[in-house]
Amino acid sequence: MNLNINGDRLLANLETLAEIGKLPGGGVCRLAFSFEDRAARQWVRSRMTQAGMTSHTDAAGNIIGRYDGLGSLPALATGSHIDTVAIGGKYDGALGVLAGIELVETLRDNHLRLQHPIEVMVFSDEERSVIGSKAMAGELSASPEVYVRADGRAIQTCLAQVGGAWEAIATAQRTGKIAAFVELHVEQGGILEELGAAIGIVTGVVGQYRFSVQIEGCANHAGTTPMNRRRDALLAAAQVILAVNQLAVETPGDQVATVGHLTVSPNATNTIAQTTHLHIDLRDLNEPHLETLAQALVEICDRVAADTNTEIAINPMLHIRPTLAHPQIMAVIEQVSAELNLRHHKLPSRAGHDAQEIGRIAPMGMIFVPSQAGISHSAAEFTSELECIQGANVLLQTFLQLDHLCLEN
Amino acid sequence: MNLNINGDRLLANLETLAEIGKLPGGGVCRLAFSFEDRAARQWVRSRMTQAGMTSHTDAAGNIIGRYDGLGSLPALATGSHIDTVAIGGKYDGALGVLAGIELVETLRDNHLRLQHPIEVMVFSDEERSVIGSKAMAGELSASPEVYVRADGRAIQTCLAQVGGAWEAIATAQRTGKIAAFVELHVEQGGILEELGAAIGIVTGVVGQYRFSVQIEGCANHAGTTPMNRRRDALLAAAQVILAVNQLAVETPGDQVATVGHLTVSPNATNTIAQTTHLHIDLRDLNEPHLETLAQALVEICDRVAADTNTEIAINPMLHIRPTLAHPQIMAVIEQVSAELNLRHHKLPSRAGHDAQEIGRIAPMGMIFVPSQAGISHSAAEFTSELECIQGANVLLQTFLQLDHLCLEN
Repeated sequence: MNLNINGDRLLANLETLAEIGKLPGGGVCRLAFSFEDRAARQWVRSRMTQAGMTSHTDAAGNIIGRYDGLGSLPALATGSHIDTVAIGGKYDGALGVLAGIELVETLRDNHLRLQHPIEVMVFSDEERSVIGSKAMAGELSASPEVYVRADGRAIQTCLAQVGGAWEAIATAQRTGKIAAFVELHVEQGGILEELGAAIGIVTGVVGQYRFSVQIEGCANHAGTTPMNRRRDALLAAAQVILAVNQLAVETPGDQVATVGHLTVSPNATNTIAQTTHLHIDLRDLNEPHLETLAQALVEICDRVAADTNTEIAINPMLHIRPTLAHPQIMAVIEQVSAELNLRHHKLPSRAGHDAQEIGRIAPMGMIFVPSQAGISHSAAEFTSELECIQGANVLLQTFLQLDHLCLEN
Repeated sequence: MNLNINGDRLLANLETLAEIGKLPGGGVCRLAFSFEDRAARQWVRSRMTQAGMTSHTDAAGNIIGRYDGLGSLPALATGSHIDTVAIGGKYDGALGVLAGIELVETLRDNHLRLQHPIEVMVFSDEERSVIGSKAMAGELSASPEVYVRADGRAIQTCLAQVGGAWEAIATAQRTGKIAAFVELHVEQGGILEELGAAIGIVTGVVGQYRFSVQIEGCANHAGTTPMNRRRDALLAAAQVILAVNQLAVETPGDQVATVGHLTVSPNATNTIAQTTHLHIDLRDLNEPHLETLAQALVEICDRVAADTNTEIAINPMLHIRPTLAHPQIMAVIEQVSAELNLRHHKLPSRAGHDAQEIGRIAPMGMIFVPSQAGISHSAAEFTSELECIQGANVLLQTFLQLDHLCLEN
């Protein structure tokens, strides 16, 4: 169907949303459950109403806008998030939400409805706890302590402030079927730009392990302790960091592994480190491979402990299973991109997304648009106007196609 | 001469001094220029008076007690410090000061005077800036900013509170000759205990370099940034830490090198480190060897920067030249130890001491007594009563011998 979204309106909406939490030095700060988040939620719901949708907020604080279909079928769903990191950009999450609303508004402008109802979902706190999409997928932890904010606020308070309710959060788990969920998002990596591709067809969202590694050595005088008598917790941490890097670089496969967090105690120039604490972030699309790598990390810690005469404890902090995109949704996105003459490329998402959770309960697909220089979570995050519009049009055409398909489970 | 110090008095004085700044959980906190330091200074001066000495405080806040000699010769000097680290022990510094006073009191008890006058020196702030002995040796920085305290207090205020005066600090530089300076101190290492030696004859105090290393990488998403596109400042830091350790372990010689301080930014689990900042502490008794090692550190940083695609700047924060003990003083300590049937061992001091500075302007020697398990700068610091008394007797006998010697310069 030769239908196009209203590019000017989409861009204007991106700008308007970016004003909420705009930082003086550039970038956007719209932390989940903040004043800015609440203001943005209000504005998004008003946009949904204007686009002809009904909307409500579920117990997990997810906003769900609905545009009825002609038949009584399960919903075709899209959406993303409007919360940002502390210094975020204006595309991460926002593009997916606003393109979803734009897709509905375009149908409404043209007096069209699909056979399926359309739902546009705005998930709570994607950037930190992913509580919104996890609750919908039934993947939530029962313990509210897990969700205490960095500033100490209880999740009960936070949810109440956005119209959710912790005590009723089980009701946020989806019971009605979702025919398909397709999320449009910026790539947050540099592959599409490098290949000159306008559209990324996501093959899946990688699984992720986070490990907490606690190394116990022995604090001692940096002058008087001979080299062969040391139990140096920072030397051990350095060995772990190098071994983790080597594992990711040298193991055949597409995994990434990172140590980005390390603390040292007592952290004094003239004292051998007593304890160090680091986090390992490990990601891969293939769950058995991820398990093999996780096991290798345990072995690395054992080896370094023996080598440095330290004690090393490694514990998982987080384990998110990978989610594969549905092959038929990938095929539709590919076909639509080809028809729109948009260069496209298949790639995994190595960042987490709400689609990873929703993909556990419904056929899932993701459409990526390029991130300039691969930058995101930064004031410098940028996707061109044309690329935003192209992404939204691919989303629209994908929905038009999916409306006629019955996906295999 | 068959003279012995009064062991009970020395031990009682150690206990009394340890009450000033005693911590509820064990250990002593008597930070330089604190209330506790001032109380301890007052008590030490009263002890000097009781021992028959005159005393004054110089512009650098050093307390100098004097016990006149029979002749008009340059002084034989001893001393140490009474300030501690935040959680220190009761022997580090205190033993040397109180053994010096005890040596004088023993002479006075026996109605004796040496040919040389005796000076007992209590140096200001050994644990942090070494400002007292540095001022006496003329090694001071002209800039008061160098000496600002960790809590932000100006050195001018601090010195004024203990009877010193920053504006007159040049007057603290020693003009009158010192015939010899001998410092008794706990080893702060485990070598004497391991060898079963009661007395350490210090061959010199090692020189020290401290370098500040700033590593600049590029912050990026730990998921979406392929391994071969990273400029990981923490990976680079880990390489530097391992190479510094390898340099110290594998280079022939007796050097030690330590990275005990490292900070990471942004220090987030899912973000590749943008910057890291670490300190390298490097010590050796041989100045040319120390320079060679320092040059090797620069080469390590260059190599790691190239290997990790990061930028690394290495800058010296501190350079203290080694000071060798005077061979004749070492010979006297050795002879005295043998005569007292005390097992002794020659070793360098790899911790800094006031003797390192005073050794630049006078013949210097140091006597070590064992530290249990090599522990110091800790509530667990311990030297037995017998070992303290033995050390003080060696100091006394060394002074008696030095009184008859003319040291070669």
